[in-house]
Amino acid sequence: MQAQEKPYLTGRTFLFNILKGEDLLQAVEGFCIHHGIECGLIQGIGAVEQATFSIYNQKTKKYTKIVKNEEMEMLSLSGNISLFDDHPMTHTHITLSDKEGRAWGGHLMAGTKVFAAEIFIQELTGDSKTRKKDKATGLSLWPNPVALR
Amino acid sequence: MQAQEKPYLTGRTFLFNILKGEDLLQAVEGFCIHHGIECGLIQGIGAVEQATFSIYNQKTKKYTKIVKNEEMEMLSLSGNISLFDDHPMTHTHITLSDKEGRAWGGHLMAGTKVFAAEIFIQELTGDSKTRKKDKATGLSLWPNPVALR
Amino acid sequence: MQAQEKPYLTGRTFLFNILKGEDLLQAVEGFCIHHGIECGLIQGIGAVEQATFSIYNQKTKKYTKIVKNEEMEMLSLSGNISLFDDHPMTHTHITLSDKEGRAWGGHLMAGTKVFAAEIFIQELTGDSKTRKKDKATGLSLWPNPVALR
Repeated sequence: MQAQEKPYLTGRTFLFNILKGEDLLQAVEGFCIHHGIECGLIQGIGAVEQATFSIYNQKTKKYTKIVKNEEMEMLSLSGNISLFDDHPMTHTHITLSDKEGRAWGGHLMAGTKVFAAEIFIQELTGDSKTRKKDKATGLSLWPNPVALR
Repeated sequence: MQAQEKPYLTGRTFLFNILKGEDLLQAVEGFCIHHGIECGLIQGIGAVEQATFSIYNQKTKKYTKIVKNEEMEMLSLSGNISLFDDHPMTHTHITLSDKEGRAWGGHLMAGTKVFAAEIFIQELTGDSKTRKKDKATGLSLWPNPVALR
Repeated sequence: MQAQEKPYLTGRTFLFNILKGEDLLQAVEGFCIHHGIECGLIQGIGAVEQATFSIYNQKTKKYTKIVKNEEMEMLSLSGNISLFDDHPMTHTHITLSDKEGRAWGGHLMAGTKVFAAEIFIQELTGDSKTRKKDKATGLSLWPNPVALR
């Protein structure tokens, strides 16, 4: 049977934009480190001058990088903050659209250049959540995953 | 004139991952039932081994099911929790990307197998929100929709 | 060095649906004005009878409008509320899928007709955030963007 999951308390709430030309991943992660945000939710919208994201290959357990050398709308940035090696680490997925409105996306990587980005962060406080290498997926995941079976 | 909508209070906040191999919809809905979450917001990212979602046909008032038998990134899971027939029911839409980064999505259905899923739930407390069959759309919707006209 | 960003406090929380036939942008913005929500986060899902969104051309600094005269799922509505000319203004991006499940999206514009829309708004209270014309992008942005460099 599934255990009771311990809830978090909501901490600080931030809403900010990022300067044109900054690297999106580095700016969001830098913001979290600078403000000592160790756990939380990330949401955002905006536009980018170019995008770099990746798709995880579940067989080879390696990321395939996709680079879009074109300006795109950022339809959504969605992710979270937790600890990895005692440092705040963000994990975010980005959804983009090209000039015809077609949507693309993947795991946000360094190399995504901000044109404009409006980011919401809800800090969570409580027991810290720490990523550890997970053998089954090859990813760094949180312990005690929810299982119905 | 539009009535004043009564605000909710924020309740418990959860951040958790789901075990590889679980059914995404059943795991999220099972989590809500297990923890007695009757109203709230759902957000999430991750990856799936295969996806099942549907598109609502507004004329025939039936869902058309789409099955993707391939691994995909989950760019976003976005939805809510409310009551239906006195039980917590989730309503979530999923946005995915294939190995070329192209985005797809629809109404999340059972048959979406988790590779990794990181889910945020913000419980809301206050007057319970209950879905009831709506004749105009054929959907189960909340009462008193906002109307400007 | 980056300054410390002042956090917001969470205010009222709303969860509501919008009547079939309403204009999505006008209904969400009208809701914010009607309830005096001057700052906040917007999230939503649903379906639309037709969609109108735009893609910003970063060179010409003009929006290109895209109209989809077809019913679509709303995979996510993601955005924020802040002040512009002393009035609440929403900025939201919409992600949609067509009948084959392919995703599209951009900057939400008037002309998007609701079939069903379930909207979450988290009000933020604290120093008001006001948009001002930004020369570098041609957009109306908040002051003091985060810069790592």
